[in-house]
Amino acid sequence: MKLDAQWIVGFVDGEGCFYIGINRHAEMTAKYQVLPEFTVVQHKRDIQLLHALKDFFGCGVVRTNHGDRMSYRVRSIEHLVDKILPFFEKHELKSKKRQDFIKFRQVIHWIQQEKHLVPKGIEEIRVLAKTMNTGRER
Amino acid sequence: MKLDAQWIVGFVDGEGCFYIGINRHAEMTAKYQVLPEFTVVQHKRDIQLLHALKDFFGCGVVRTNHGDRMSYRVRSIEHLVDKILPFFEKHELKSKKRQDFIKFRQVIHWIQQEKHLVPKGIEEIRVLAKTMNTGRER
Repeated sequence: MKLDAQWIVGFVDGEGCFYIGINRHAEMTAKYQVLPEFTVVQHKRDIQLLHALKDFFGCGVVRTNHGDRMSYRVRSIEHLVDKILPFFEKHELKSKKRQDFIKFRQVIHWIQQEKHLVPKGIEEIRVLAKTMNTGRER
Repeated sequence: MKLDAQWIVGFVDGEGCFYIGINRHAEMTAKYQVLPEFTVVQHKRDIQLLHALKDFFGCGVVRTNHGDRMSYRVRSIEHLVDKILPFFEKHELKSKKRQDFIKFRQVIHWIQQEKHLVPKGIEEIRVLAKTMNTGRER
């Protein structure tokens, strides 16, 4: 199945998520690990769409999410920077999810500057991440 | 905001619903009323997308759905036949929701043939409607 860029934008406006995970990690100097991820969750009956997204972007994995739900997920900073960010810069989201995308991109830039390795940087990331994904059901 | 046809297909693959309501209606000969509807539900923060869909299709209404959620809804058989069905015939859905669309179209054709005015027709519609919208959360 070949996907059109605008179809992907519409589908991600509906079903996509730009998420910043911040997990306790005792072995790191800043004590926390920052894990940005781009995900699209879908009922397993449409798993072929998740594989089509994976083929389109040329990165990421398709995994079971929860129960009958599957997810397409990109966590690699390199793939996010090289493939996901440029795509959504070129093809702008039309929903308020674009605000989440802009914050997501900001955090990834901070990670590239290694801000996430010091407590002050973690705190800034945490403040920004808290304002993301409001108004979502899941 | 101007929408691209493929964006709409992607968004509806994610968020749209083709639904056949069958309600008890004592005053009708067949005792039931068949109400097909096409809906797209969205958090109110993205109400502008629902209005953009309404503008694109030139029919339907934007209403409160439930709590913070709004919906774009087309119920008029005339508008479904003239605007919604031809759009999704020309621009095919990529998800399994296409199966729901095909059944939805079948029921609308049956309504045009007035099958929904006799008990046997209602029963056929009920059997088909039961196989729709499986694997959805809402």
